[in-house]
Amino acid sequence: MIAYQSHLVIDKTAKQPAYLQLANQMTNLIRGGELRAGQKLLGSRQLALFLNIHRKTVVQAYDELLAQGWLESRAGSGTYVVENLPEMTPQPLADSQKLIINPAKTAGFLFNEAPHLQRPVLLSSFQFHLDDGFPDPRLAPLNELTRAYRSNLLHGNSYVRLGYGDTKGSAWLRRELADYLNETRGLKITLENVLILRGTIMGLYLVSTSLLKKGDNVVVGSLSWAGANMNFMQAGANVLKLSVDEYGPVVEELEQLCKKQPIRLVYLTSHHHYPTTVALRADRRLKLLQLAEEYGFIVFEDDYDYDFHYLSKPLLPLASADRAGMVLYCGSFTKAISPAFRVGYLVGPENVINHLAQLRRIIDRQGDLILENSFAELLQSGVIQRHLRKSLRAYRERRDVFCELLRTTLGNCLDFQVPDGGMAVWTQFDKSIDLALLAEKAEKKDLFFSNGMHHNSPGSALNATRLGFASSTPEELEQCVDILKSVI
Amino acid sequence: MIAYQSHLVIDKTAKQPAYLQLANQMTNLIRGGELRAGQKLLGSRQLALFLNIHRKTVVQAYDELLAQGWLESRAGSGTYVVENLPEMTPQPLADSQKLIINPAKTAGFLFNEAPHLQRPVLLSSFQFHLDDGFPDPRLAPLNELTRAYRSNLLHGNSYVRLGYGDTKGSAWLRRELADYLNETRGLKITLENVLILRGTIMGLYLVSTSLLKKGDNVVVGSLSWAGANMNFMQAGANVLKLSVDEYGPVVEELEQLCKKQPIRLVYLTSHHHYPTTVALRADRRLKLLQLAEEYGFIVFEDDYDYDFHYLSKPLLPLASADRAGMVLYCGSFTKAISPAFRVGYLVGPENVINHLAQLRRIIDRQGDLILENSFAELLQSGVIQRHLRKSLRAYRERRDVFCELLRTTLGNCLDFQVPDGGMAVWTQFDKSIDLALLAEKAEKKDLFFSNGMHHNSPGSALNATRLGFASSTPEELEQCVDILKSVI
Repeated sequence: MIAYQSHLVIDKTAKQPAYLQLANQMTNLIRGGELRAGQKLLGSRQLALFLNIHRKTVVQAYDELLAQGWLESRAGSGTYVVENLPEMTPQPLADSQKLIINPAKTAGFLFNEAPHLQRPVLLSSFQFHLDDGFPDPRLAPLNELTRAYRSNLLHGNSYVRLGYGDTKGSAWLRRELADYLNETRGLKITLENVLILRGTIMGLYLVSTSLLKKGDNVVVGSLSWAGANMNFMQAGANVLKLSVDEYGPVVEELEQLCKKQPIRLVYLTSHHHYPTTVALRADRRLKLLQLAEEYGFIVFEDDYDYDFHYLSKPLLPLASADRAGMVLYCGSFTKAISPAFRVGYLVGPENVINHLAQLRRIIDRQGDLILENSFAELLQSGVIQRHLRKSLRAYRERRDVFCELLRTTLGNCLDFQVPDGGMAVWTQFDKSIDLALLAEKAEKKDLFFSNGMHHNSPGSALNATRLGFASSTPEELEQCVDILKSVI
Repeated sequence: MIAYQSHLVIDKTAKQPAYLQLANQMTNLIRGGELRAGQKLLGSRQLALFLNIHRKTVVQAYDELLAQGWLESRAGSGTYVVENLPEMTPQPLADSQKLIINPAKTAGFLFNEAPHLQRPVLLSSFQFHLDDGFPDPRLAPLNELTRAYRSNLLHGNSYVRLGYGDTKGSAWLRRELADYLNETRGLKITLENVLILRGTIMGLYLVSTSLLKKGDNVVVGSLSWAGANMNFMQAGANVLKLSVDEYGPVVEELEQLCKKQPIRLVYLTSHHHYPTTVALRADRRLKLLQLAEEYGFIVFEDDYDYDFHYLSKPLLPLASADRAGMVLYCGSFTKAISPAFRVGYLVGPENVINHLAQLRRIIDRQGDLILENSFAELLQSGVIQRHLRKSLRAYRERRDVFCELLRTTLGNCLDFQVPDGGMAVWTQFDKSIDLALLAEKAEKKDLFFSNGMHHNSPGSALNATRLGFASSTPEELEQCVDILKSVI
């Protein structure tokens, strides 16, 4: 057997202190059986000499291993590996040494992949972007927000303020939101109906996990948001689809579905249907609520971009006409301010809110109460409302500029309706254009846009995508369209 | 046809109020056709008598169903199932007005409660607290943190910085953490082994949801953290228990368990066992890793208070000796800084980290990248490391003061070991003391401490609790013990 010290290699250029390297390697040797229970170790001076390191390093390593119980010191005799170690299965040393250089890439235990969660994430790091419909953070009240954050972080009783809090979120924000939603969206709620989230996706997750069972039927539009579908699939639900026409999902088909099988949940972005941006027609809204009451299904109303509607007033959400507690209403500051601030809210009957909060407790315990209080402060002082009015004006102008540019410059290669609301134009490209290729070419000229492939269901090739205009100034939009034109 | 009332069963021990059970069941009967449109119902007195419940309960249920539009009341005649069931009529104004005063308290659809998630949340709003072992946020580098937050929020390309980012977390923080953990805890990882979380609980949630199946066996200490157990139960796992002695969980028992059935995961707070604060003995650590390799189970190592160890140096975590990718190592800034900052991390093999990140994407999409970058900055500049050294000194002093006070003032009513680490003293009270009553009395004098009931398993009455010393100054601790003495 090779003397154990020959296995020890100290890398003086490594970030890890030498004594820790030594201690770890010795632990590995004990585990691998190269160092046996009860074996006497070299003295620190001897080992230091052998390894060409400082003696203090060896002493530190031995101290560490003594404290951990791997070694024992016998007075006047030296340092030994402890006697009462469990039996070791010898491990080829090469392997344990390799780990030091190659961190683990695969787990020693097995698990199943989750194919339904494997969708590419599209992120733009390009100078220009016609994205999925994101806001322009340059318009956001960032200075007001940092001031509020600082003040909510530093002032008051820090033990309470910076300790654990209510899983349902900041009471201040829940109250401000209840008032705000009652005023602007015709809801009739109190803070007890509000659960603060980390964005809409968390609302979908909590609802899917808590309220759906394997095999439940969930209904969405044939064109709908993949993030919602992934959640329903994760919960084991069957996802059934309604046709989508120029007035949104065809609710008439829903009644047929209800007659054939129990429906547990219907997911809708009723205000601006994702991805096509149209508002659900009023008679369909009414029908939907009637069916929900009749058949007892949940309506998940995802109102992610409510604030941005350019025709007179926004429609009131379905939730405002919900008399039987069938609608769970979800909104967020993601589109209103920026995706970086993970604050959203779910509105629903108290018993559902309490039920979902119980699940949320074991997921992330609570939100960021400092940030939530900061948002509450900005709602209370009207900063967010002013920001929304300003953004609405800016986005309306951007929509007009962008649609005009598309029409005049590219009108013969694509088709679209000017959206009444939202932050993107649902754009149908001419069949002769290969959208995937076009998106690739555009990236080479520093313009990102999605090739829309993820909107296709199996067998369908829409050749359509969302072109988000809100995050770019009119000047930037002009450059975007110029690039698009140059590669088309 | 059986009379409809024979289908009704009220469970008086259920958490759901009786009237709701009744209302829900009647709704189901209507939906199921057992109660027909237009059918006359029994009077409330009659039905109450039949079901042996209070008449008020029936009235409440009928009111609920009237409000929901399932029933109608005909003056002088009684209560009927509404006639026009398939085609619901729009809501008369009077009803929606009622909602303004009484927002929806219950959902019109049914769902099952989750009893395993119904644990009380203990929060202190009292001036004095001997809590579960929380840090003192007065020591935290809050000014440095707000400066870093402000600078990370305001500077750079806002579209990228404030847009969607990597679900795994800030690359900057992942890199800093990998370096930091390699240096301080003997790990050998890169940023690819790190997933940023919203605290330890999210690590438990992701692992339980992604890696456990219904019926899997999970092993914990007989005394262990309820937050972990709730996660395992939520995933449908069987929770098996190891005895806990003065050296931590008795790993010897684990081998017996492994021989009898497949074990999927073992959960441990190896550094300071929760709640008893002892460190797991070295031979047990070794045995545990051997068993993990032999039987292929996951070791979830929750190292929530690694930073606070008062004897020479902290022990290296199990993860530092994991050569086969069996250990998932979890830590957080909750105890290091304050619970308000929801930033933690999970370290594991790359394929597991990628797998967990896919699930995380549909839960909250991503963490707070601004906050994560701020933590990265404070790690890089050494602010957090200085803070930890300062806290360690302060907490050691507080531990000494507190243990001395406990011994001298209350030594005859309670028993404890001075903890080598952590932020709380596991305190055994004399059998003659009613801990629940004591905690109540203390609250009246503005002192919070947990009565420890949640540490009891069914049938056991430990009369023990954790008394957290870290969040109070020596002067405050003196007052805490004075109050405790005055009520004992």
